[in-house]
Amino acid sequence: MKVRRSERLVEMAIYFQQNPNITTPLNYFSEKFQSAKSSISEDLTIIKNSFEENSMGSLVTYAGARGGVQYKPYYETQQLEKEILALQNEINGSERLLPGGYIYTSDLLSDPKWLKRIGKVIASKYITEEIDTIMTIATKGVPIAQAVAYNLNVPFVIVRKSSKVTEGPTVSINYLPRSSSEQVEKMELSKRSLKEGSKILIIDDFLRGGGTVTGLERMAEEFNCEVVDSVVFLEHNSKVSVEHYHSLLRVKSVNEEENTIEVETGNFLSL
Amino acid sequence: MKVRRSERLVEMAIYFQQNPNITTPLNYFSEKFQSAKSSISEDLTIIKNSFEENSMGSLVTYAGARGGVQYKPYYETQQLEKEILALQNEINGSERLLPGGYIYTSDLLSDPKWLKRIGKVIASKYITEEIDTIMTIATKGVPIAQAVAYNLNVPFVIVRKSSKVTEGPTVSINYLPRSSSEQVEKMELSKRSLKEGSKILIIDDFLRGGGTVTGLERMAEEFNCEVVDSVVFLEHNSKVSVEHYHSLLRVKSVNEEENTIEVETGNFLSL
Repeated sequence: MKVRRSERLVEMAIYFQQNPNITTPLNYFSEKFQSAKSSISEDLTIIKNSFEENSMGSLVTYAGARGGVQYKPYYETQQLEKEILALQNEINGSERLLPGGYIYTSDLLSDPKWLKRIGKVIASKYITEEIDTIMTIATKGVPIAQAVAYNLNVPFVIVRKSSKVTEGPTVSINYLPRSSSEQVEKMELSKRSLKEGSKILIIDDFLRGGGTVTGLERMAEEFNCEVVDSVVFLEHNSKVSVEHYHSLLRVKSVNEEENTIEVETGNFLSL
Repeated sequence: MKVRRSERLVEMAIYFQQNPNITTPLNYFSEKFQSAKSSISEDLTIIKNSFEENSMGSLVTYAGARGGVQYKPYYETQQLEKEILALQNEINGSERLLPGGYIYTSDLLSDPKWLKRIGKVIASKYITEEIDTIMTIATKGVPIAQAVAYNLNVPFVIVRKSSKVTEGPTVSINYLPRSSSEQVEKMELSKRSLKEGSKILIIDDFLRGGGTVTGLERMAEEFNCEVVDSVVFLEHNSKVSVEHYHSLLRVKSVNEEENTIEVETGNFLSL
């Protein structure tokens, strides 16, 4: 066995993992490894097969002058279902119920093991879409946004309830965080953080009435950006004002007397 | 060339990348691939060499009943210097200067390409230390904390200036965000998010007087946790009240009239 190939395989596999969703010309590899393009092509076939067999996504090759190869990280439908079921099983437990019917999920949303899986689950559905930027709102949406951004290889912007001196000029809008309440709140986004005309994926951890997502949509409008979709980790079944969104999980029932919650799969899989 | 080995190499390389800093018994691989332990050992040697040659870290093998192999992601000193220099060059530009001598870094701290590098830079120095949890404060510390957590494979906890209904009971302390001011602020951390006795690495984006890091240290004390170290991305050279901390970069000079800033390497490399 030629050691050269094995080294190339290891290096290329890692390279793709670290640089998802961008096109790398074959030249890059043949020059880096001083190998013939035919050898690189063989390597790519091995890596592609390995990725596909292990539900890691796939390699896509583009022909032409600006062509090359791109790693698309995604779960196949079956694995996607398994991943969401694993999340569901993790959350279904009475220890997570908080007063007011809220659910404690901070442990999941700050654990790299879960975040990596959640990021790949969400990215799976948008990996072939044109997304320029992920938009989220501080604080708990941030880790999910970052996890998705790692897979889609695009930056994320953080909308905040109050901006800081380190943000520069901001655009500010008012929104109704709860459809039930009349209390208007403010959200702000640094002007220089988001380019006009970007295609946006909105990410948040929790959706109850949809007021926050509606606010984020309006913020995107202020920047003349197009919202491709909105995804939330957990949706609480109630009257939702926002029209288009997808949820990984949905709260089916909360029994505060018996201190139990039941979570089911959201509408994300039907995407 | 046996296809089997090439597939194993690709899969194992990816496995290590996705599961850094934990020990996996060799049995896991020999069972998964139905291969002899001797073959797995050869694979590991190839992967280890490849990792080391490409400044990706190394594989460490532990003998004994609870032994196995562990991927330690880190940059060697030389690469570490290069990475910090790259950050320095990226920040040294007048377009980043904000009123009050603050520096705009949100673009770097929300771009996966930079975050992955920053996360690995910081992890490099703590990959052989016993760290249980990373502690950060909302909002801009979160992406750095997550990036480091991805490498150290430990959870992070987010201290907040005001807690939310989704956090459950919290511990709250008062702190002086600025040594110059007398204004006391409050920071809170969800009680269930941090285990007593944990070893903590504090991460934040910016340090001026050190009040926030001091506050975080005190918060750790409230949980009977030990702070191993505190790392900030950018330090502004001024009177610092906190005793132990490390910074990747340090603001050397700010000239608001000429609208220029100069950033130099912090004391992180001397760690």
